[in-house]
Amino acid sequence: MPQGCLADGIQPFHVMDILARAQRLEATGRSVIHLEIGEPDFPTPEPVTAAAVRFLAGGQVRYTAAAGLPALRERIAGFYRECYGVRVEPRRIFLTPGASGAFSLALAAALSPGRRVLLADPGYPCYANFVRLYSGEPHAVPVGPEQDFHLNAELCRAHCGGQMPVAISASPSNPTGTVMNPAVLRGLVEWFASERGILISDEIYHGLEYGQRSVSALEFGDSAFVVNSFSKYFGMTGWRLGWLIVPEAYVDAVERVAQNIFISAPTLSQHAALAAFSSESFAELERRRRAFEARRDFLWEALVRLGFGVPVQPSGAFYIYADCSAFSGDSGEFAAALLEQTGVAVTPGKDFGLQAPQRYLRFAYTADIPILREAVERIRDFVVG
Amino acid sequence: MPQGCLADGIQPFHVMDILARAQRLEATGRSVIHLEIGEPDFPTPEPVTAAAVRFLAGGQVRYTAAAGLPALRERIAGFYRECYGVRVEPRRIFLTPGASGAFSLALAAALSPGRRVLLADPGYPCYANFVRLYSGEPHAVPVGPEQDFHLNAELCRAHCGGQMPVAISASPSNPTGTVMNPAVLRGLVEWFASERGILISDEIYHGLEYGQRSVSALEFGDSAFVVNSFSKYFGMTGWRLGWLIVPEAYVDAVERVAQNIFISAPTLSQHAALAAFSSESFAELERRRRAFEARRDFLWEALVRLGFGVPVQPSGAFYIYADCSAFSGDSGEFAAALLEQTGVAVTPGKDFGLQAPQRYLRFAYTADIPILREAVERIRDFVVG
Repeated sequence: MPQGCLADGIQPFHVMDILARAQRLEATGRSVIHLEIGEPDFPTPEPVTAAAVRFLAGGQVRYTAAAGLPALRERIAGFYRECYGVRVEPRRIFLTPGASGAFSLALAAALSPGRRVLLADPGYPCYANFVRLYSGEPHAVPVGPEQDFHLNAELCRAHCGGQMPVAISASPSNPTGTVMNPAVLRGLVEWFASERGILISDEIYHGLEYGQRSVSALEFGDSAFVVNSFSKYFGMTGWRLGWLIVPEAYVDAVERVAQNIFISAPTLSQHAALAAFSSESFAELERRRRAFEARRDFLWEALVRLGFGVPVQPSGAFYIYADCSAFSGDSGEFAAALLEQTGVAVTPGKDFGLQAPQRYLRFAYTADIPILREAVERIRDFVVG
Repeated sequence: MPQGCLADGIQPFHVMDILARAQRLEATGRSVIHLEIGEPDFPTPEPVTAAAVRFLAGGQVRYTAAAGLPALRERIAGFYRECYGVRVEPRRIFLTPGASGAFSLALAAALSPGRRVLLADPGYPCYANFVRLYSGEPHAVPVGPEQDFHLNAELCRAHCGGQMPVAISASPSNPTGTVMNPAVLRGLVEWFASERGILISDEIYHGLEYGQRSVSALEFGDSAFVVNSFSKYFGMTGWRLGWLIVPEAYVDAVERVAQNIFISAPTLSQHAALAAFSSESFAELERRRRAFEARRDFLWEALVRLGFGVPVQPSGAFYIYADCSAFSGDSGEFAAALLEQTGVAVTPGKDFGLQAPQRYLRFAYTADIPILREAVERIRDFVVG
């Protein structure tokens, strides 16, 4: 294999090692509780599946337009009007193969070789890998409890190195589950607009909040790129359907990129997604949101009681980023031993950056409370010894 | 919009203008015959649709492993054993969001910034745009009737500029429909292996041949990357599912890239695709192949009789690349006038490169013979005047 290819810059996920070990344990008959995977445990909402079956009866699963089905772009525009009170022209909305596809489009529009991209550390590890693939330079901005683990305008100014600023912000955050204060998001949007920079706002966990609802970057103007997806809140991971909202000036460029690198997003998923916005679907999604909230309450309280440090209450997504330094100086070793000895799988902090990763573990509460209770009992036995 | 972003290097498709004009004509009530689009007109084979409906009854549409469903990777390995007589380890097979996704993975493995990628001109326009997005340098290699419009080892040696050679070859070719001679493909594979270069063999039109069957680059060794898809031969465009076969040394790197930029290919499409390999499905696909062959015979003879130049008989895919210089010095103007005056939509050569594009038109025979007959009559009236 030749050295120096783009793929060389891509880091593996340590969680994949955890997952492989967990599966080996399960193959030997051990009981494993999976708190390592960032995927909701709920099935696709029934109205969505029913719409897919109806569409299949027609038998025509052809390409759609590169930007997506016009009816779905209209429906998403309606969602922004109803949920956020903002007007988004459907022509600014692009359906993509997962949020992953949306990041490809946004970065193609934002980057040129060597351009710096500011990323919160800790943060979602794919961002940096995406940026490297597009020949940009990921630049980690350390964030901690004092920033609710989020970027803000002051940090971006301090880290942009005098260049045109480009950043990806994410709220609710993976791995911390923290929700950005609306004033901070406003500050980010306005500063990037004033600098003619590019802010990409990752809103894929929107709708999964357990306190104040998230605000969208679009509530503070039309200058940011917004990424969202049907995977998390809408419970449609395997359908691989996301969307990107772009500033008006980028519509033509992004359409050209989409035509070339996707042709179109999955057709059946797009037709099915139309049904995700029905009142029946939203009622089911609200029940799920409350279930996640109850799990968050349970697991957060239990972990704190055990002696884990969770300095900012997580109030979104389905993650708790917990400091385990009361028990171990190396969260990677802690996670490996916890799995081997108790069968509880969690993700070590080193998947999320370089900011004290050895102190942290990410717990995904993608399992129901009786299972979480069992996990907490096993963890208690493990840390008490 | 900032200047100098990656998206600036992406060319628009002229066929999109043709398509937009055709749709405007149709909106006014005019009859339009679409020979401009590279999409089969047959619906998804029934066994595939039925498998999707059965899978949906289970309701669980979760992420698959990044490389794809193990059962589907096994099945594709079986397909190579049965159709090409070659052994491919399933771990070398990656399911991707369309062949587009396979190109993303292959280029991430092949490229570093500035690396030259040899492409046949005329050829599929997305290749060059993909290469630019990944910061490589597309290098057009003029090919003509004397090479059956294909790359060969001598051309690649002459054009690689002394660098490690990287090329994308494609057979059957889009836009010419020509099939590469097996000896030429063998020469390419062996020369790239001897130079430790990277050959990406685009085999997405395999199965749609009307003379000798295509051979796969894998029949001459394990050193090439092979791209294929369920879109064309299997008639599953909107399902957005392709695959990439990688040399053993690249398996880990490509898996890392796939985890980051896709998470996984569409789950429902993967389960449905398992049924594409049934004997019932293959019987239907063979009927379709024969229908395409009859259309090829009809349209090729008719165009030659009208005075279009088709120097190499197209024997694969569903395209005829016809020289219209007997009628016009500018195929772009010819295509525009043909559409306005007769309602027949075809793609001008300028979408396919810089090698005498003004002489050529691409006809896609993705319509049945009565419609093609009507198209030929309209074209006759147009060129006779």
